[in-house]
Amino acid sequence: MSVKPAVVLLSGGVDSATAAAIAKQAGFAIHALSFRYGQRHGCEIDAAHRVAAFLSASSHLVIDFDLRAIGGSALTDQIDVPKSRSAGEIAHGIPVTYVPARNTIFLSFGLALAERIGANDIFFGANQLDYSGYPDCREEYIQAFEAMANLATKAGVEGKSRLRIHAPLLYMTKAAIVAKGMELGVDYSLTWSCYDPGADGRACGRCDSCQLRVKGFSDAGVLDPIAYAE
Amino acid sequence: MSVKPAVVLLSGGVDSATAAAIAKQAGFAIHALSFRYGQRHGCEIDAAHRVAAFLSASSHLVIDFDLRAIGGSALTDQIDVPKSRSAGEIAHGIPVTYVPARNTIFLSFGLALAERIGANDIFFGANQLDYSGYPDCREEYIQAFEAMANLATKAGVEGKSRLRIHAPLLYMTKAAIVAKGMELGVDYSLTWSCYDPGADGRACGRCDSCQLRVKGFSDAGVLDPIAYAE
Repeated sequence: MSVKPAVVLLSGGVDSATAAAIAKQAGFAIHALSFRYGQRHGCEIDAAHRVAAFLSASSHLVIDFDLRAIGGSALTDQIDVPKSRSAGEIAHGIPVTYVPARNTIFLSFGLALAERIGANDIFFGANQLDYSGYPDCREEYIQAFEAMANLATKAGVEGKSRLRIHAPLLYMTKAAIVAKGMELGVDYSLTWSCYDPGADGRACGRCDSCQLRVKGFSDAGVLDPIAYAE
Repeated sequence: MSVKPAVVLLSGGVDSATAAAIAKQAGFAIHALSFRYGQRHGCEIDAAHRVAAFLSASSHLVIDFDLRAIGGSALTDQIDVPKSRSAGEIAHGIPVTYVPARNTIFLSFGLALAERIGANDIFFGANQLDYSGYPDCREEYIQAFEAMANLATKAGVEGKSRLRIHAPLLYMTKAAIVAKGMELGVDYSLTWSCYDPGADGRACGRCDSCQLRVKGFSDAGVLDPIAYAE
């Protein structure tokens, strides 16, 4: 039996590394896809390369574009990334780190790659709990994208295939994600989460993303293998 | 009354120039969006700049990314663009010039820009007649994209707005498009259609896109103001 290909959106963080490991365990050949989109640091792409290699991805493609031209987010603009003191203080509502239509753009490139390599499956580490403020991390959004995607491609028109967007982490807590990844043997020392690393290259430990990560490892009772600035 | 902004996908061809003119006539301030995605020539972007200036666009943004990395089309790969002898000979089915998920990627960036500038309207020159082979030029696809888009953004989640994808040319013949543009005063000498221009910078007159254009102007009884190689 030949191994079926799947496109995996790989940011290099805990969630996408775990989603990739789940795809691999499900028997898919992983075709990793990452984006250099004007993030404020390149650590994410380095981490994505490490994770792709660790999981023996069949291919890893990095697409470059500059979302700074569109702007509207603390992740791409010169807006301060919010720093809280505890996970409980993370702001409610849609955070300033939300990037307009980012997941739609990512999934659209994923769709292009899927069509090109003949994959019917796209894996995506979206999470509705930790990122409750992001409109494009919700199940109804993902279902709507899948419906659109099945009308967008040759295969969809010809009725030859049914494209599926997998979001296996959608309702998992960060602790459950870490536990699942540990069970699958993910090496989280290869991953990167921080929105705002220091000059020494260490994670800040204070941005929303660091705090969610720290809390997730703590709740899972697992030692986070990366170094923090404080 | 303040003028409402609309994002207009502007390739620099006859269709998108006409769609932009329709948006302008409908009273929208045009925010043009073009893409440099590894096309085989840059004439399209030059034409898009000319058309945006001609229509007094409020802004014109060009996003760069390289679809050649994904490939799968004669427009981005080193595959020969098909040359027919007459419009009647244009191949049926999905053409090799189809670029996987291209319109989905374009509309996704359009969605990001719309969210950023507070626009509820995106204009798009898709045409179901001339491009019957392209899955992402069909009404059901556009409706599915619109449904997805309304779940993808802050405004969609907050119920504050209803994003609309306008495809005013969807069921128009190329002749009807040219006639409409002439009525609106579009200067088609600024536009570009050819997939495969010669070294002298003139349109080839033989690729599918040139043939559709030539036939459209001919059927409309309008002189095509651009120069052809033959």
